[in-house]
Amino acid sequence: MADLPSLLEARYGATSTGSAAPPVSPTTANPTLETLLQHKSVRNFLPDPLAPGTLELLTAAAQSAATSSNLQTWSAVAITTPDLKSQAATLCGDQEFIRAAPLFIIFCADLARLTTTCAQHGTPGTGLEFLEMYTMAAIDASLAAQNAVVAAESLGLGVCYVGAARNRPRELASLLSLPPRVVALFGLAVGRPDPEAPPATVKPRLPQEEVVRQETWGGAGGEGAAQHQQQEEQAAKLAAYDEALADFNAKQGRGDAPVWTYRSAHRIATVESLHGRDIFRDVLEERGFELR
Amino acid sequence: MADLPSLLEARYGATSTGSAAPPVSPTTANPTLETLLQHKSVRNFLPDPLAPGTLELLTAAAQSAATSSNLQTWSAVAITTPDLKSQAATLCGDQEFIRAAPLFIIFCADLARLTTTCAQHGTPGTGLEFLEMYTMAAIDASLAAQNAVVAAESLGLGVCYVGAARNRPRELASLLSLPPRVVALFGLAVGRPDPEAPPATVKPRLPQEEVVRQETWGGAGGEGAAQHQQQEEQAAKLAAYDEALADFNAKQGRGDAPVWTYRSAHRIATVESLHGRDIFRDVLEERGFELR
Repeated sequence: MADLPSLLEARYGATSTGSAAPPVSPTTANPTLETLLQHKSVRNFLPDPLAPGTLELLTAAAQSAATSSNLQTWSAVAITTPDLKSQAATLCGDQEFIRAAPLFIIFCADLARLTTTCAQHGTPGTGLEFLEMYTMAAIDASLAAQNAVVAAESLGLGVCYVGAARNRPRELASLLSLPPRVVALFGLAVGRPDPEAPPATVKPRLPQEEVVRQETWGGAGGEGAAQHQQQEEQAAKLAAYDEALADFNAKQGRGDAPVWTYRSAHRIATVESLHGRDIFRDVLEERGFELR
Repeated sequence: MADLPSLLEARYGATSTGSAAPPVSPTTANPTLETLLQHKSVRNFLPDPLAPGTLELLTAAAQSAATSSNLQTWSAVAITTPDLKSQAATLCGDQEFIRAAPLFIIFCADLARLTTTCAQHGTPGTGLEFLEMYTMAAIDASLAAQNAVVAAESLGLGVCYVGAARNRPRELASLLSLPPRVVALFGLAVGRPDPEAPPATVKPRLPQEEVVRQETWGGAGGEGAAQHQQQEEQAAKLAAYDEALADFNAKQGRGDAPVWTYRSAHRIATVESLHGRDIFRDVLEERGFELR
């Protein structure tokens, strides 16, 4: 069983002042922690189909996640047919690894099922018209998907999430014949990692203290001048992460990659940088999510 | 190691025609699948504080989840102080188990960090103004939270998600001093399950074929008359789940509970049934989520 401090060192990377990983106890992982902490996105798949029963097992894991008030406001479409998968790949950023993976699952926010229960029981379903219910559905779908991911990785499979499933939402809904009040949120490519390809690597994340605050948000907080001060404090902390990720990139032979804060700022700089997702709200409304 | 068919039978329940669980292979679980498939929400906690290092370990698991473009658009606030936790509990549906749990984590959508990177690098951050980025942040936060849940359960801890963190979003943001462009999405109570309390039970979920579709949505699909036909087909499938859940409820001594379709239809029937969450969009906009 892997040693937890080593797993955490890989997850937080190194800066000039040493490892950014916090000390933990216990120091020995269990198999589940090992699976979780070693996650890395896999984009090189063998074309072999998955073993029979795998999708059913991933589905059971997904459905075992918590769901708000047991409303189960999500659905998924599992694509294995090469032609359909290729068309879906084209709509999802035209990424080749989606075509290569034997299974591509599209996770959806689903308020259609509750619309059916309202029709059955003659209730107005007014709650479904609010942004709250879209939020609930996005959370439900994500909790479920992450359980499927952990299950897949525990079986030695590799996965990659595909946020580009929101790049061309009208066309994807049409390809999959999604009904009203169902929208694709993200995809998940699943398959056996190709042992001949360069192995995927654990990517360092932000320092813990930048992501999980103790008791309250702390720092300057608040608005106006205070916000400016908070941004300055935060920028100093983010500089340590820029350094850790630059060290990681250099070891991966990508020493010329821009630092994280620069890359991130440019990733959301303009409407164009959203790769078509600026219409996502319009598409939600067209599909019957009123978002009041 | 537990037997997978038994775990799936508990997860899908039984109807008059037998188990609703699909056959799976392999038939023996690994420790991770066992943890995932046996999930149940725990609402009876021992008051003991968690072992030192536990929050750090859960945080590392959470941060190990995938995050869109590595933008890491989430944050959390970990509350352990009894007085603050009690105040948070009051705002989150006034649920006593939150006060009893030694740790209550509030997971947040966080676009403030990227706002900081824009200020650092002099980019406009126009992308942050779109519903797309709120969606991304809600997904990121949920994937992270679910990893924390799986990690906690692998350590023998129990958890309960708290969607009621959206019931009084203005007051909760104020209590936690959340900065602009950060909003609480849900809470997570974490602690050791009380062995003296009635044990939590695995709750049956919808049949797999109702949740995961093959290749495309299938069925009648589409709009208008077709939608009506689809709802009729779906209602027939949901009847089987009403039956499975009624059987489960009867075994739990809740034989008088309404069936799932009825309860669900009423849970979202009116504005009032949202328990205050009808203002969630207004609060998001006040907090700097433009949702274009």
